[in-house]
Parts: sequence; C-alpha cells; structure tokens
Amino acid sequence: MEISDKTQLLSVARARPKPAAQPLFDRVVLVGTGVIGGSLGRDIRRLRLAREVIAYGPDPDILQRSMMVGAIDRYTTEADKAMEGADLVMLAVPLGAFETVLRHICPHLGPDTIVSDAGSAKMCAIEAVAKVTGAVPPWFVPGHPIAGKERSGPEAAEEGLYAKHRVILTPTPETDIGAVRRVGELWSAVGAEVLTMRPERHDEVLAATSHLPHLLAFALVDMLGGMEERAEIFRYAAGGFRDFTRIASSDPTMWHDICIANDKSINVVLRAFAEQVEGLIEAIDSGDSEHLKGVFERAKARRDRYTQESRQGI
Amino acid sequence: MEISDKTQLLSVARARPKPAAQPLFDRVVLVGTGVIGGSLGRDIRRLRLAREVIAYGPDPDILQRSMMVGAIDRYTTEADKAMEGADLVMLAVPLGAFETVLRHICPHLGPDTIVSDAGSAKMCAIEAVAKVTGAVPPWFVPGHPIAGKERSGPEAAEEGLYAKHRVILTPTPETDIGAVRRVGELWSAVGAEVLTMRPERHDEVLAATSHLPHLLAFALVDMLGGMEERAEIFRYAAGGFRDFTRIASSDPTMWHDICIANDKSINVVLRAFAEQVEGLIEAIDSGDSEHLKGVFERAKARRDRYTQESRQGI
Repeated sequence: MEISDKTQLLSVARARPKPAAQPLFDRVVLVGTGVIGGSLGRDIRRLRLAREVIAYGPDPDILQRSMMVGAIDRYTTEADKAMEGADLVMLAVPLGAFETVLRHICPHLGPDTIVSDAGSAKMCAIEAVAKVTGAVPPWFVPGHPIAGKERSGPEAAEEGLYAKHRVILTPTPETDIGAVRRVGELWSAVGAEVLTMRPERHDEVLAATSHLPHLLAFALVDMLGGMEERAEIFRYAAGGFRDFTRIASSDPTMWHDICIANDKSINVVLRAFAEQVEGLIEAIDSGDSEHLKGVFERAKARRDRYTQESRQGI
Repeated sequence: MEISDKTQLLSVARARPKPAAQPLFDRVVLVGTGVIGGSLGRDIRRLRLAREVIAYGPDPDILQRSMMVGAIDRYTTEADKAMEGADLVMLAVPLGAFETVLRHICPHLGPDTIVSDAGSAKMCAIEAVAKVTGAVPPWFVPGHPIAGKERSGPEAAEEGLYAKHRVILTPTPETDIGAVRRVGELWSAVGAEVLTMRPERHDEVLAATSHLPHLLAFALVDMLGGMEERAEIFRYAAGGFRDFTRIASSDPTMWHDICIANDKSINVVLRAFAEQVEGLIEAIDSGDSEHLKGVFERAKARRDRYTQESRQGI
C-alpha cells in the first residue's frame, strides 16, 4: 500500500492484541515512561514485540519506578549507552523537552535507528528535529497516540491502553516510508487503529477536538475557583459538571507545552469559540430564542450522532 | 429549627430511603412527568409518601406513558379535576411553560394546597407565580433538585434518582415556613440532601456551576459541527471529549428556557468566561508561559480537590 498525502487507514483496531510470533524490533528505547511511554513499554514487553525495552532519562528514580511497574527491562541515564543498538527510539516526553532530548540523543543514533514520538502537536515536533539535525530527516516518524489520561507518572501506565484507540502518524514528504510502516506495525500490534495524516491537518483537527476542550475546562475551573471567596461554588455542582471538568485534572506542564507547540491552530479555534460565546451573550441579552435554540438543537443532534458513531466504531 | 435568610441544611442525604410509616401527603399532583417529575412520582409511590400521585397535563399520550412506567396512579387533562383535593402540586415542566400552567391551575387551588416547582432558575419561577396571582404567595415553595440527566421523557424517569443528590429550596420572605418544611420532608424522604438558599444566590451559583458549563458544551459541539465540511472532526476526538461534551445532549428547549429565565446571572458568568478566554488567547499569542501555567495549575489543583471532596461528601 502506498502512503499518500491523504488521510489514510493503515490498520484497524483490535480489542485483544495477541503476542507476536517474532519480535518486530530488537531494541526499543523509551524516552519518557509516563502514561504514554510506560503503557507502550508494558504492552511491548507483554506481547513480546521487541527483544528488549530500555528507558533513557535523567532521573534514576523515575526510571526505577518504570521498571517496577513492568514498563521496561532496564534503564540508563547515559545517552550514548541508550542509543547503542537501538532500532526504535520513542519520544514520550512533554513537547517542551523535545529539543533538549534530541540534542542529547541525535549524536549517538545508529544509521538504521528509527526515531518516533507521541507528542500531541506534530508540526513543532518535526521542527524540533529539523532544528537539531539541520533538516527534516527520513528516520523521524512523527506520531500521536490519541489516548490521553488525566493521571500521570510511571504508575499510571497501563496494559492495553492503546487497544481500540487511534494513533495518527504524520509523515512529511522526507519521511522514509519503510520507517512509517514499521512504527505503524508496532502501534497496530498493541491494538491501535493506525492512520496517516498531514501534520498540518493533524494540528488543526486536534486543536479543535482536544486542545480547545482542555483549555475550556481549565479556564472554567480556574474561573470558578476565583469566585469561591463569595460562594462555595463547587458544592452545588451536579454530575454533569464532574464529567465536564474531568480533563481540567490533566498535567499542567504537558498542556502548557501543547499551547506553545500548537499555538497558531489553537488560537484559531479559541478565537472562533470566543465569537461563538459572544453570539450567545448577545442572544441572551436580546432574548433571541431562535439563535439559542439553533445552537442547542444543532449541538444536541451532533452530539447524539457522535454517541451513536462511537458505539459503532471505536 | 428556624429557616433563615442564610444558606442552611435542612436534611442530609440517604442512599437508601425507606418506605414511610404513614404518607406525608394525601394527594400529590405532578405537572410534568419527564425525568424530574416522573422520577419523583416513582419514588413517592414506591416509598408510599402519598396516598395518591396524579398527573395533570395537556397530552394524554405522555400521561399514559407516565402511568405505564409507574410514575403516577392516574391522570387527567382537566385542571379543575386535577387540583381537587391536592395537598401538593409539583411543577416539573420547562420554565417557559410555567406561566401558562399557573394560569390553568391557580383558579382551582384549594386553600391549603402547596405548590412547589423543580425549575433550574428560581427568581423567574417566583416572578411567574407573582405575575399570575398578583403577589408572591405564601403557598409557593420554589425548589430545585440538582439531578439533571441528558435523557428526557417519561421513560427516562428512574427510581432513586434523588438519593444522594441535593435539592435547594429558595423560600422568599413571604413563603410559609410550614410549607417549606413539608416540601423539604418530601425531598428528604426520597433520599435528597435538602438546603435552603436565597433565590438570587441560587441563580448566581447555578449560573456558574451548571448553566455556564452547559452553554460551553453546546457552543463547542455546535462550532465543531460547523467545521466538519472541511474535516471529519469528531472522528479524532478522544475519551476526554466524550465526557466534556456529554451535557451537550441535554434538552434544547429546557436549556433555552433556562437562558431566558436566568439571563442576567448567566451573562455575568459568560462575560467573565469570555474574558478568561481572551486572556488565554493573548498568553498563547505572546508565549506567556507564566499565565498559561498559572491557569492550568490552579485549575488542576481545584479540580483534584473537588474530586476528593465529592468522594467524601455527596
């Protein structure tokens, strides 16, 4: 199958991935072993998708904890040792750390090592690699597993996290197709539906469906927190509020980095949302029932359809 | 216990309310038998809190369906027959229908009949009664069970809906204390925590914790729906999105009525939210990490505390 410029499905999702007949990789190096990296490590080991999973990072305590939860076979804090014999390096650190990490590891990469990542914004990941190496290299496969969780840290990693989730790979024209395919096979082997998409389009779509809702949840809870001196605001919140604000418990550093990394696409949707809010304010001010009902009815119809679609698909 | 101007706890919640030794009311009339009215009817009947539960409304089909699900003993479409011998009339229709309903029932109310309601905004409920009767009457007990659901209609009514939920009663200076107490006893008997609060304060607090999140969810889903021609936006939404937008499946008519009914308090918080969004847009534009981290960290800390508090309390 050709990998084209269009959005394309590489593999469908599976609920219960089976152990591999033979490993896809010899040595996988995880840089970052939180929910995303740690969950991948646990599945690679459980499903025997690599002969060895090692972690590289600056903090022995975190690396030790990752080993305790079964995410890795061993670890090192030294970049040269970590990269020795690595077929695949997976960056699963906040986007703000990419450049630093790449400066440490790039000098030690072997000629056939594939580097991939799990960052929530793709253009900036590609730019970070290009900045460090001087050009967009064929061996970098930008990727994004859409499997966020509010909890963070090595202990929040879980087996089977990617089963029935989507992973979007966003190759550039320079990216080696074989490398894309191998990274896709790995995600597919842990149960994910794997798609390819242009990185620009990924950033626009995720700004709308993921980054914007997170910002709104953070903004709301922060605002209500500021109102509390006058009123025990949260005491009177109902069940819907709990669901609505759950994502405001997400990791602040990660979300700060996403805002900086995907700033342009995020501000496009934030501005559009601000206009939508202005429309509501005016409609409420003027008692414009038609406008209000229009928004609510369209939203309910679309949300109900989304529920049906999610039940049928992933 | 005195019922004062301050926010006050009348009864604590119970997970498994027991059947009453003797009925609290002789005849309860439900006007509106959707989730709120129907669930109350089912519990009143199950726990034998009234000798009889009857429903009054214009649509025999809906009333018949309410009887099928066990929410009522019988029904009538005639206001005079419905009000005959009623000790308690509970209005559980959208706020926009209050005035019409009150015009039908008020001429037939007995001297000792208590009327209460379950509307999500209280000042406008009180104003509707005052408009129809010419003054704020002692027999009207404004109330609000905080137990919304996205589903609607008689079939969405459920037993035990109010156990471990809050009900806020918002008496005015004119309201008869005995009537407040009796309505409070009913909600308490179905398991709810019952509080009293000034109606103005109720409307401000609910605008912030309930009305605003609903409007934001509706606004977001409507906006993303509008972007879809360019992109299968919803296809790439993750789990967090599902929770965040669940309340956008709520009943459009009900939420339209709430916006009209609580317009001033809602626009105060909508404007404050719009400012919060502007602050984010500027911070992202200028790369103001401190602002972004401040919002995210405060929000996460507050949301995490809310989770803990909800686990301990209701």
